[in-house]
Amino acid sequence: MAVKATLKELAGVTGGRVIGDGNAVITGVAPVEEARTGDITFITGAKHLKGLAAAKASAVIVKDGEYDAPGVNLLLVKNPRIAFGKVTDIFKPAYVPPPGVHPRAEVHPGARIGAGASVGAFVVIENGAVIGERAVIHPGVYIGLNAQVGPDSTLYSGVAVREGCVIGSRVIIHCNSVVGSDGFGYEFDEGRHNKLPQRGIVRIEDEVELGACVTVDRAAIGETVIGRGTKIDNLVQIAHNVRIGANCIIVAQVGVAGSTVIGNGVVIGGQAGLVGHIRIGDGVMIGAQTGVSGDLASGVWSGSPAIPHTEWLRASSVFARLPELKKRIAELERLVAELKEKK
Amino acid sequence: MAVKATLKELAGVTGGRVIGDGNAVITGVAPVEEARTGDITFITGAKHLKGLAAAKASAVIVKDGEYDAPGVNLLLVKNPRIAFGKVTDIFKPAYVPPPGVHPRAEVHPGARIGAGASVGAFVVIENGAVIGERAVIHPGVYIGLNAQVGPDSTLYSGVAVREGCVIGSRVIIHCNSVVGSDGFGYEFDEGRHNKLPQRGIVRIEDEVELGACVTVDRAAIGETVIGRGTKIDNLVQIAHNVRIGANCIIVAQVGVAGSTVIGNGVVIGGQAGLVGHIRIGDGVMIGAQTGVSGDLASGVWSGSPAIPHTEWLRASSVFARLPELKKRIAELERLVAELKEKK
Amino acid sequence: MAVKATLKELAGVTGGRVIGDGNAVITGVAPVEEARTGDITFITGAKHLKGLAAAKASAVIVKDGEYDAPGVNLLLVKNPRIAFGKVTDIFKPAYVPPPGVHPRAEVHPGARIGAGASVGAFVVIENGAVIGERAVIHPGVYIGLNAQVGPDSTLYSGVAVREGCVIGSRVIIHCNSVVGSDGFGYEFDEGRHNKLPQRGIVRIEDEVELGACVTVDRAAIGETVIGRGTKIDNLVQIAHNVRIGANCIIVAQVGVAGSTVIGNGVVIGGQAGLVGHIRIGDGVMIGAQTGVSGDLASGVWSGSPAIPHTEWLRASSVFARLPELKKRIAELERLVAELKEKK
Repeated sequence: MAVKATLKELAGVTGGRVIGDGNAVITGVAPVEEARTGDITFITGAKHLKGLAAAKASAVIVKDGEYDAPGVNLLLVKNPRIAFGKVTDIFKPAYVPPPGVHPRAEVHPGARIGAGASVGAFVVIENGAVIGERAVIHPGVYIGLNAQVGPDSTLYSGVAVREGCVIGSRVIIHCNSVVGSDGFGYEFDEGRHNKLPQRGIVRIEDEVELGACVTVDRAAIGETVIGRGTKIDNLVQIAHNVRIGANCIIVAQVGVAGSTVIGNGVVIGGQAGLVGHIRIGDGVMIGAQTGVSGDLASGVWSGSPAIPHTEWLRASSVFARLPELKKRIAELERLVAELKEKK
Repeated sequence: MAVKATLKELAGVTGGRVIGDGNAVITGVAPVEEARTGDITFITGAKHLKGLAAAKASAVIVKDGEYDAPGVNLLLVKNPRIAFGKVTDIFKPAYVPPPGVHPRAEVHPGARIGAGASVGAFVVIENGAVIGERAVIHPGVYIGLNAQVGPDSTLYSGVAVREGCVIGSRVIIHCNSVVGSDGFGYEFDEGRHNKLPQRGIVRIEDEVELGACVTVDRAAIGETVIGRGTKIDNLVQIAHNVRIGANCIIVAQVGVAGSTVIGNGVVIGGQAGLVGHIRIGDGVMIGAQTGVSGDLASGVWSGSPAIPHTEWLRASSVFARLPELKKRIAELERLVAELKEKK
Repeated sequence: MAVKATLKELAGVTGGRVIGDGNAVITGVAPVEEARTGDITFITGAKHLKGLAAAKASAVIVKDGEYDAPGVNLLLVKNPRIAFGKVTDIFKPAYVPPPGVHPRAEVHPGARIGAGASVGAFVVIENGAVIGERAVIHPGVYIGLNAQVGPDSTLYSGVAVREGCVIGSRVIIHCNSVVGSDGFGYEFDEGRHNKLPQRGIVRIEDEVELGACVTVDRAAIGETVIGRGTKIDNLVQIAHNVRIGANCIIVAQVGVAGSTVIGNGVVIGGQAGLVGHIRIGDGVMIGAQTGVSGDLASGVWSGSPAIPHTEWLRASSVFARLPELKKRIAELERLVAELKEKK
């Protein structure tokens, strides 16, 4: 099953143009430092120019207009990373299980499975659930009562989508993530935490990706929403009634508490935490490990509690010198007392 | 399957009393800003009084003694949240799978399944395990050798309860959580980390709730304990031999290291971390992202390392001004040197 | 199935020597404060000497050369913890499922299962996958296309090993962990985050242990590597193309971002985070909740951003006094202004 293509053919696939030998035969992809004859690789940024000269690859994808031909075959494209991704899809295609429902899946007769969908072994699909066309439900997934998964979405093994939750089209959810677990809501009364019903849903819009072991809680009433094109990394916690806008990036182990509203294009670094019931404006950037306890309208934020990122950088650089500053204050107090006395 | 009830009937269910039309027909629940004719909603606190006047709901649950009738039908109760929860259970009942053992569950003949219990498809129940009456074991759960699940408990899909662990009554464990994984214990010797046997158990007392993707490690010897009525949010880590008291609240992504002992009614904010072998007293409150490295007898704590919350608030507000303070110290040093010279 | 052994026999198993009655009959293990007649226990360190005198155990494992016989039967060994572990294995043996492939496992005819391996119910093993001799694959595990699991490895229930990933020998992976989920890689272009193919693998070397709900992402191209003998606790995130050396200890809820390279014998405390594309030298120690944003060649580090641990301890102790320091600076400014004026 070895795949071969000429550089010219790859130019067609990527919408690029060739400088050098368009008939060069490409048989694989590799990072620049590991590429050998037959491989195509890519570089971005001037810092890799040296690597380019030394490259043993049969062709290199570069940004059109950024490089001269240095004696190797070049494929000039608008965006080298995306072009390299397209080429990777050719030489290392993704694993996709065959369509059809595995005889060892447990699909309720009242569920609907779209044409071309794949349902693996030991999957459970409850009554009223709908699986879209060409969706891929890997082994061991659980789809609850009346839940929906849109066309061309992929749910990897062990994912749980609980009752009533709605997953859009072209969504990807990685292994063992949970969509629609109960929100964390109690009312303390008569000496105990009384569980409040969590009967809303989670709605995940088109082209969202959730990493592995992500947890998204269902709303108490209404919806928890992950907006179109938002990408969420592994082990992230999204609490009940949170609403996240479109095209956000949420890095691993972030936690977002209940009812917080996040705008479009927000970037949240790893292990950051947001308290509940706040609003984060479009385009806000939140650094790793930041603790956000109030609304943020715009800007870049870091620290716990969060302050503007540049202030945080400056203050952090002074932090280590606190013991020295304390000594200098004490010395000043001594000197000033002395001066006062002498007067 | 539409549910209807008069306001009078709901007063019976919630132990409240009606001001207005007790015959008003209620057909659903909604938050105050979304409620329409037919819905019942609730408000708490004076700040929602305006919302109350504007409410389009057919009835509003309020705290008895807190409001006058403003022209809408009121259901006056002791605790509006709990009453609204009871009403929600009527109009949006929880999904409960039917009792019985699914033919595609793998139940060892040496396991005992209580009357009225539900065991879903692809569940594994090992030899000697005991499932209590009316317990609900959702699809894909794993119950290990001799493990016990008490009556009326619910384990959602993908939960693992390893050998020997004991789960009490009316416990809820959300999808993909793990009870009884090995504790993280090694002894470095002869150039390698030698695994120490982890052969104790986890004991989860009655009315505990664990979120999704929670991990509770089994004790090395003896027991890891989660006390009665304690509620634990998603993605929390409880290490081996930890003992947690009753009615604690542990928010998402908290980590508690080995052998730490936590009292009753302790509240731990999201992403906080507690080192091992410490004691946290009854009623202690620990803020989000706090790092606790020693015993805490009482009080409210924040910061990493933890200090009293009010001190932390004050110190944090000065933190951003550290660069300015440093400059002011340098300026003082200059001035004092000048004064000394002039003398 | 009660197990009995004489102290003399246990001396043989642990390579130790007895002081006292070698014929004492041992029937169980317990921590020193819970041990009763028939139990063997252990102590380490002088602080437990009192406990030793009061011990009700029938024998106590101690470090050879560290204790005199205080009237109880002693088993003197080189390393008491490891010896106690060996004895625990005798009295509380681990649960090991029987070898053989469960009829309700779904094993592709193109997969190979080694002699003596155990494959549980509802396991899926895809085409081309290889399970080593005596490996134990607990119920509900997913093993992807062409993935490999080495001899004597144990995968607990719900673990997912995606296509092509390679697990070494004597590896242990706890429930619901994920090996080989897609790395978190996108390229923003034309208003959306374009997914970049993640087609490398994860390689886990011999004697690694991964806790529960750990996520290890596959490389974009090439390999994400966990080195021989490294032990990883629950809920840890290892991003794509990370390379971790041998014999590291990574405590719960740590996150390591993409392409970071970690040396041998590195210790990382709970909830610490490492940004991507950095290098951590052999033997570096990183404290709990630390935020590492640059290379660390050696030493012990704490804080976010990370500074040397001793500096962090000193600076943290001043932090709470920041409001007081600010006041003292203001008072100095007042005094100095006064002095200047009087001149």
